[in-house]
Amino acid sequence: MELSSGQARKLQSYIGGSWLEGAGEGVALHDASTGEVVALVDSTGVDFRTALDYGRRHGETLRRMSFHERALMLKSLGQMLMERKEEFYALSFATGATRNDGWIDIEGGIGTLLSYASKGRRELPNTHLLLDGDPEPLSRDSSFSAQHVLTPLTGVAIHINAFNFPCWGMLEKLAPTLLAGMPAIVKPASQTAFLTELMVRRIIESGLLPEGALQLICGSVGDLLDHVDGQDVVTFTGSAATGQRLRRHPAIVANSVRFSMEADSLNAAVLGPDAGPGSEEFDLFVREVVREMTVKAGQKCTAIRRVIAPRAQCPALIDALRERLGKTTLGNPADEGVRMGPLASLAQREEVRARIRDLSRAAEVVFGDPDNPRLVSGDPQAGAFLSPVLLYCDAPLASDVVHDVEAFGPVATVMPYESTAEAVDLARRGKGSLVASVFTNDAGFARDMALGLAPFHGRVMIGNRLSAKSSTGHGSPLPMLVHGGPGRAGGGEELGGMRSVKHYMQRTAIQGAPGLISTITGRWQEGAAAAHGEEHPFRKSLAELRPGDQLVTATRRITLEDIEHFAAFTGDTFYAHMDEEAAKANPFFEGRVAHGYMVASFAAGLFVDPAPGPVLANYGLDNLRFLMPVYPGDTLQVRLTCKDINPRATTDYGEVRWDCQVTNQNGAVVASYDVLTMVARTRSQ
Amino acid sequence: MELSSGQARKLQSYIGGSWLEGAGEGVALHDASTGEVVALVDSTGVDFRTALDYGRRHGETLRRMSFHERALMLKSLGQMLMERKEEFYALSFATGATRNDGWIDIEGGIGTLLSYASKGRRELPNTHLLLDGDPEPLSRDSSFSAQHVLTPLTGVAIHINAFNFPCWGMLEKLAPTLLAGMPAIVKPASQTAFLTELMVRRIIESGLLPEGALQLICGSVGDLLDHVDGQDVVTFTGSAATGQRLRRHPAIVANSVRFSMEADSLNAAVLGPDAGPGSEEFDLFVREVVREMTVKAGQKCTAIRRVIAPRAQCPALIDALRERLGKTTLGNPADEGVRMGPLASLAQREEVRARIRDLSRAAEVVFGDPDNPRLVSGDPQAGAFLSPVLLYCDAPLASDVVHDVEAFGPVATVMPYESTAEAVDLARRGKGSLVASVFTNDAGFARDMALGLAPFHGRVMIGNRLSAKSSTGHGSPLPMLVHGGPGRAGGGEELGGMRSVKHYMQRTAIQGAPGLISTITGRWQEGAAAAHGEEHPFRKSLAELRPGDQLVTATRRITLEDIEHFAAFTGDTFYAHMDEEAAKANPFFEGRVAHGYMVASFAAGLFVDPAPGPVLANYGLDNLRFLMPVYPGDTLQVRLTCKDINPRATTDYGEVRWDCQVTNQNGAVVASYDVLTMVARTRSQ
Repeated sequence: MELSSGQARKLQSYIGGSWLEGAGEGVALHDASTGEVVALVDSTGVDFRTALDYGRRHGETLRRMSFHERALMLKSLGQMLMERKEEFYALSFATGATRNDGWIDIEGGIGTLLSYASKGRRELPNTHLLLDGDPEPLSRDSSFSAQHVLTPLTGVAIHINAFNFPCWGMLEKLAPTLLAGMPAIVKPASQTAFLTELMVRRIIESGLLPEGALQLICGSVGDLLDHVDGQDVVTFTGSAATGQRLRRHPAIVANSVRFSMEADSLNAAVLGPDAGPGSEEFDLFVREVVREMTVKAGQKCTAIRRVIAPRAQCPALIDALRERLGKTTLGNPADEGVRMGPLASLAQREEVRARIRDLSRAAEVVFGDPDNPRLVSGDPQAGAFLSPVLLYCDAPLASDVVHDVEAFGPVATVMPYESTAEAVDLARRGKGSLVASVFTNDAGFARDMALGLAPFHGRVMIGNRLSAKSSTGHGSPLPMLVHGGPGRAGGGEELGGMRSVKHYMQRTAIQGAPGLISTITGRWQEGAAAAHGEEHPFRKSLAELRPGDQLVTATRRITLEDIEHFAAFTGDTFYAHMDEEAAKANPFFEGRVAHGYMVASFAAGLFVDPAPGPVLANYGLDNLRFLMPVYPGDTLQVRLTCKDINPRATTDYGEVRWDCQVTNQNGAVVASYDVLTMVARTRSQ
Repeated sequence: MELSSGQARKLQSYIGGSWLEGAGEGVALHDASTGEVVALVDSTGVDFRTALDYGRRHGETLRRMSFHERALMLKSLGQMLMERKEEFYALSFATGATRNDGWIDIEGGIGTLLSYASKGRRELPNTHLLLDGDPEPLSRDSSFSAQHVLTPLTGVAIHINAFNFPCWGMLEKLAPTLLAGMPAIVKPASQTAFLTELMVRRIIESGLLPEGALQLICGSVGDLLDHVDGQDVVTFTGSAATGQRLRRHPAIVANSVRFSMEADSLNAAVLGPDAGPGSEEFDLFVREVVREMTVKAGQKCTAIRRVIAPRAQCPALIDALRERLGKTTLGNPADEGVRMGPLASLAQREEVRARIRDLSRAAEVVFGDPDNPRLVSGDPQAGAFLSPVLLYCDAPLASDVVHDVEAFGPVATVMPYESTAEAVDLARRGKGSLVASVFTNDAGFARDMALGLAPFHGRVMIGNRLSAKSSTGHGSPLPMLVHGGPGRAGGGEELGGMRSVKHYMQRTAIQGAPGLISTITGRWQEGAAAAHGEEHPFRKSLAELRPGDQLVTATRRITLEDIEHFAAFTGDTFYAHMDEEAAKANPFFEGRVAHGYMVASFAAGLFVDPAPGPVLANYGLDNLRFLMPVYPGDTLQVRLTCKDINPRATTDYGEVRWDCQVTNQNGAVVASYDVLTMVARTRSQ
């Protein structure tokens, strides 16, 4: 039923700083429930090479911002979008999404943006490059060393997204891209591009992003990929067939373009042998399977497709699933009381029906009629409605189809297993999935399954009674956890907190004299020159301090009385401090030794500058190692060196990290650690 | 000049636990200097699918070993090979390598193995899976959380290597593969496969590797790649054309097989504007360029191809390079006094001559006659000798060929620059390289160049007078630094210490109730159950301790006298401890606060068990954070929980990490850190 498209608006692309309309007639996009034309989509005539060049040219603006500045930009963006969320919800119904489905897409997407905004400021320094790992000393005399760094790629990230999450799909990739300092071109799947277009329109209108940071293609990408090079990144979420075609694209292959793909995934959920009917885990499992089948009408790359259960439990499980599935109210998602909406399009429904027919070769339908949805509202012909369909495959080890065919809709197949090894084997036959879940209260089964599933999955969730209330569920990718899977799932990795930021950066080992490396990285390292001013470095503000500012303290001789006094005062009377004979019997000591805590405390006594000044507090220590025993009669001295300085964008103080080396009278380092301080931006504070 | 191959031995492949000969006639491999036939190579009839299945089947043996067991295996392997090194040197001459070239390949390769053996034990736990990052709390009540882990892939790593380093090329990939717990199939380039075959023969004979851990293909890989799946890894080092063909291989594309490639690289060396003739950096630069052109006759993927120098210095630079290149003695590498040997084969020489002709379109030859090598020994027709050839391109911004054409031999092109930006631009025109070097004593120029080059390079070396003696040089990949580059260089990443071990493992987020996650990972985490025995946990040996063993201590009330006493005793009289008014003026404190060091010392006094026992020493603290101020009158209590246990393979003690939480009378955490102890394996020790 094709409605007139004469009145429909043509979606625009945002390219080179302007909103452009394609020169063609446009393809009609339909409301998934009513079949009405929502918009037309077309990108004929768009100059994609220019778009790429424009993004590359303006990348410098993003790269000149610090990580914290970019994170604050994401925060503003997220707040602005959250304020306008109702506008997105209103349009989201046309994609077939219920309010609950829309929440995942809209607020889930904006929440991901905000999560990156907050983690970015907490976990990244307020600088322009990231240090990766510790300095690598390459010579004994500290004259040659190395430091791995990460710098943003200088190209453009092209994100080709799937139809099912027009908002989240864009934002979960955009957040790490922008945080890394890379501009993006977003290409949403046409089917639901109208919602992405609206959100991009609000983003651009807000003026919160610098010019060139975000471009949008509504319609085909044309010859865009012909022009990518080794500094660009291409990500793809969608069907395996399209993904594989892109992976083989001549320019991607020839230029070793980073290509990340997230495609098919026949995710499994496994019921533990302990979780029989009546157990909490059985009930949790039933709820989870039904939720995963019906949320977004099963159009989620993380949805449960294979339900792996002990053979003995299968009949009861199927009964319970049928009962619960029977309560799913199917209809127009804009209507009250509707729990599940239609698929995204009639074409998509035909596709899923065909896949159900494939699955039926090896499995029987035990719930739902693929051809006749029972609706509480909506038109079963005009809308892409499909009943939830549950299948049962009795011999899953003898069938490939149930492990290979993904029906991207409210469809799952129950399959029995006989042993833990068989459950692992069945799950692995998905050939690599985004996620698997295991419902059990048996820690041993949980461990065996998790370790068996791990190499084949990007995420493994264990569900049980303890986490029932707080669990985010099988199907939810979280900003702090990796999202992606090996093999069939595409081999990509997204999210995972700051891990994904690094996907848009190049790792480089910088080698040379330590002083040069310190200049390049901004972090002082061993072997670099140090500055000894007249003033104690604790008297310098953030603005005045420089990496390499160093204090060499007076000395302090340790006595047996000190040790005994410290033991009595603190209560730490460990024998190695108190008993000469017992200490000697210890493999590490030649006799009574000073407390490590005393060494660190005396070190502070040596390096601290007592009067009020810019150094406000010592908020911690990192990597404290007691490298040699300190014996009575030893003389300690401290070398304290400003290592790096991290002013914050939003406070009047920032972190300063000091390298602290405590040596004995022979110059040997007895303790080594970083002292972490908060320091005021200026002296007057 | 084809010599008789009637007597030559046919190289064998090691497949499925047996040494096999190909069924074909074999292709003759020639001594690079004399043209004599060294061996025949052929793999006709080898069943590659079986080889893959065999490796996969036996991978379990490797995975059952711990990281330390695998590292110790690499150590034994390295020691065994080092003892037999002269045998490899003797055969290495036939590849065209001088003793010095052979050192890089043979001892460099074995050294890489030993480096992984030692770093593996130092940096990895003695367990079967790696934790990646910290636990991710996913609920406020600690009932749901996550931990990323890395587990070895269950397939086989296929390493397709280049002809130039038959030993190092194998070992630098094998070390991280085996350490990760993955079996390997090695396929050396046929040209120099005889040396790889000899080394593999010694490895297999030694019996140091478990069955199936290493297979070797001498000859073509046949249909091997048709059978790879998502749990396998394919790495390739060699020509871009072959690499791109492999990257597009249907099975690699269809199964998202991890594919790492290291191909062409037009590495640049940049002379700083400060480094004029007479400066130390000028001399260092000349030596480095000549070394990189002549070592291995320039057949190194990291060799300097483009010599980028200030225009004004170019004439002097070319003079200096010509003079030094003129001293290169070229001949049979087995002869005394020969500094540079032939290329690997006559075919390779024809290839390089063709590339020099390409370069000559945009550059003039300023040293060396490509067609007439001047030899001190050897036959210029039978041996693949080629003179070093230096070119000069006066307009490098107007030429693509000098940035695109790699002559894989003793060939480099000098090109002038006018500004720092232009030097960066020229280096970037290599479109992604393995390494670039910058010779300068100007820290600002070093920084600008390093940051400009970083996104396009896997390694950037700064050379100057300070690191001259200790520098490992432009061309040396090091085990602890990443080796690889974006774009034209292939986009792969090798080495980099433990980073490359993770290339053979899958990252998985494990979600669930903290207790289940602790069971799976072996590391106790917040929210998991804790065990409170009658005995102090410090009385338990490594064998008896379990993650979750917990001590909740008595309490201690902090007094102002304590603070004053601690200040007087340690000398730490920072105003926030001593002066009520000044402390109040500090943005973090409401009045005088206890020293953080005192809080940690008192905590030890509360948790330490004084009598001799299995806990031998506290060797450090990690991630100490003072989360809330402690004021006089506050009461402290400590909760100490065994977090993880790391027995070592070779000592009677191992590391135990304790989670330490110091709380105040309100239950708020005032300090949080990990206490690191050495604990004896048994009580009797």
